[in-house]
Amino acid sequence: MASSPRNVDEHRAVVAALLTPMPAEDVPVGQALGRVLAADVVAGVALPSFDNSAMDGYAVRAADVTGVPVELPVEADIPAGRTDVPPLHPGTAHRIMTGAPVPAGADAVVPVEQTDGGLDRVRISATPAPGEHIRRAGEDVRAGVVVLPAGTVLGAPQIGVAAAVGCATVPVRRKPRVLVLSTGSELVAPGTPLRTGQIYESNGPMLAAAVEDAGGSAELLRFVPDDVDQFLGRLRDRLSEDTVDLLLTSGGVSAGAYEVVKDAFTGRGVEFVKVAMQPGGPQGAGRVGELGDIGVVTLPGNPVSSHVSFEVFVRPALRAALGHPHPRRPVVTATLGERWTSPPGRRQFRRGVLDAVAGTVRELGGPASHLLGALARAECFVVVPEDVTDLSEGSRVETWLLDG
Amino acid sequence: MASSPRNVDEHRAVVAALLTPMPAEDVPVGQALGRVLAADVVAGVALPSFDNSAMDGYAVRAADVTGVPVELPVEADIPAGRTDVPPLHPGTAHRIMTGAPVPAGADAVVPVEQTDGGLDRVRISATPAPGEHIRRAGEDVRAGVVVLPAGTVLGAPQIGVAAAVGCATVPVRRKPRVLVLSTGSELVAPGTPLRTGQIYESNGPMLAAAVEDAGGSAELLRFVPDDVDQFLGRLRDRLSEDTVDLLLTSGGVSAGAYEVVKDAFTGRGVEFVKVAMQPGGPQGAGRVGELGDIGVVTLPGNPVSSHVSFEVFVRPALRAALGHPHPRRPVVTATLGERWTSPPGRRQFRRGVLDAVAGTVRELGGPASHLLGALARAECFVVVPEDVTDLSEGSRVETWLLDG
Repeated sequence: MASSPRNVDEHRAVVAALLTPMPAEDVPVGQALGRVLAADVVAGVALPSFDNSAMDGYAVRAADVTGVPVELPVEADIPAGRTDVPPLHPGTAHRIMTGAPVPAGADAVVPVEQTDGGLDRVRISATPAPGEHIRRAGEDVRAGVVVLPAGTVLGAPQIGVAAAVGCATVPVRRKPRVLVLSTGSELVAPGTPLRTGQIYESNGPMLAAAVEDAGGSAELLRFVPDDVDQFLGRLRDRLSEDTVDLLLTSGGVSAGAYEVVKDAFTGRGVEFVKVAMQPGGPQGAGRVGELGDIGVVTLPGNPVSSHVSFEVFVRPALRAALGHPHPRRPVVTATLGERWTSPPGRRQFRRGVLDAVAGTVRELGGPASHLLGALARAECFVVVPEDVTDLSEGSRVETWLLDG
Repeated sequence: MASSPRNVDEHRAVVAALLTPMPAEDVPVGQALGRVLAADVVAGVALPSFDNSAMDGYAVRAADVTGVPVELPVEADIPAGRTDVPPLHPGTAHRIMTGAPVPAGADAVVPVEQTDGGLDRVRISATPAPGEHIRRAGEDVRAGVVVLPAGTVLGAPQIGVAAAVGCATVPVRRKPRVLVLSTGSELVAPGTPLRTGQIYESNGPMLAAAVEDAGGSAELLRFVPDDVDQFLGRLRDRLSEDTVDLLLTSGGVSAGAYEVVKDAFTGRGVEFVKVAMQPGGPQGAGRVGELGDIGVVTLPGNPVSSHVSFEVFVRPALRAALGHPHPRRPVVTATLGERWTSPPGRRQFRRGVLDAVAGTVRELGGPASHLLGALARAECFVVVPEDVTDLSEGSRVETWLLDG
């Protein structure tokens, strides 16, 4: 344990350094929702890739339709998808559907509503401007340009445009694989009755969900025994099959006499420190050489400490490794709706609810690190800096939005 | 086609009525990320479920430690998880770890830092207040209370609290199953070279991603033939295996001569209408009796029209069926950073980028319905009401945030 506490930002940098940018992998465009592009997507074709009709109607030469009404012979029928479109002869029309290729020689489309809809001959009642109702090749996207830059998070419209320019697959960053360990002989699986002294294991599922929510892939190794040799053996067995990008533990790191995580990793590459924050003081991070140089982050065991530490240290590291454009939660400045005091020398992360209309924030529950019920109703963290001990009502406070 | 256009809100109600609230299903708590609770989660146990220590230290009677320093014999050692905790005799201490049950007879915990850490006898240098460093049973959550109400969207903290109160599974609404159809003989699979007149199929993957993003489960039925009998036959085959909650098509619904969706479903329960909006005028919705009374929504085929229609009509319907607390996108009022004109009688949904600091919005691309490249860079929709034709710079405009 370092004698003087480590600053939050310094520990965040230590954790971030454990992960390097994830390698790229190609995934089918239809399975890429929420993934982050590892490279630019370049348009293999223009959009549209050919001049096409914006309306159902008739392709004409505008010069042939200057005096209306006018009647023209219909020489061809062009449904969408027709690939053998004959050119338009002067003084004639082609019937054309939305999206179908405009024939060579035509320079306007007359919507069907401005005609009698004739099949052999068509009577046209309005004069089109040259170019009217024609979508020009490349007017949306030119071939060869970047339609989606590296770092784009793929939602439905981005998947649409990637498919439209001909991508069967897209290059995305592989999800960081995180092995989540829950230790503690007090932990019991749900469904089993509790005896006094036992608690249901919740950090494991909570952290695994947090990893997935951050864009990672989580595997939960539950109820690892509180014994150093068994603990390391279990990890060695698991990692010999297949490595992971990060090992995430909770609990077993404080000042107690039975701290399996600390006992197992001390002297093996993990530095255990006290970080100047509340909740979440006892933290550890490092690389364990004898487990294949795996990056390890050891979070404290209190559920709220564990969650807050994940948000402060691990989530931004995972998202940075994914190349995510916004590794951190959205931050707003809100007005404190009540008076707070805060201990000196520690950055506090307090759970709050935000009145978005009034722009005010209030605490939910309290600052204690075991109030999981309140955490589950919180919408935001409110950050109180290390040197602030007294916040009057109306203070402007840094607020992290937890659903962004 | 109805002679007078249908209002956007009216069509939204028609689409919403096609889906009923999804039935509940129990899923393992570790697989419930992002799901919506179908019923309240009630605490099966209190949190904490027993009085426990908030610190590593010594459980004492406060009255025994009034004059410090004082030395007490250590009669027991209580690690977390110990279930056979002996009571504390007056004038003695028990060594206790964070989270371990406080022994009967103790009313305070002295942190190890305020002691000499002795194992047989402990020298205590600070007087605790009665109750200090003890977390009382039920002070976070009382047994029997609702910890998560129906309608809660399950993120990591909510999964944590559900696990902590002993839930192995949680009751969530089943994901609406949506069969997404892409029709159109102009559509080509990515990887195939395009001939003039052909386009890569993008609406299918885009809409399937949009369904998943809204919380549904999408299945893509690609390249359904542009022939009514084959189209209906293909659907009958697919639906005879297993039904779905909604059928979603794009294209084949406008005024053209080859409109397979419209031809197949007209007179079979789907009403085709013109909705007073831009983009996205031609819409259809209804139930098809001969396909097992399945709900059908037919979106227009232009990619931007298709996406906008999904956002306006289908996404809120899917999320309402999930019991989601916020079926609609977050809406803010922004300041228009430029001058716009808009056609009368139609509600426009224009794609924009938002300067969140300045609170101003500008258009991206233009209002045309084929500008997919611009849609993929848009952050918001800006809504122009039916009766507004001219918006000066500085106008206040309704803005939908697309990543919320």
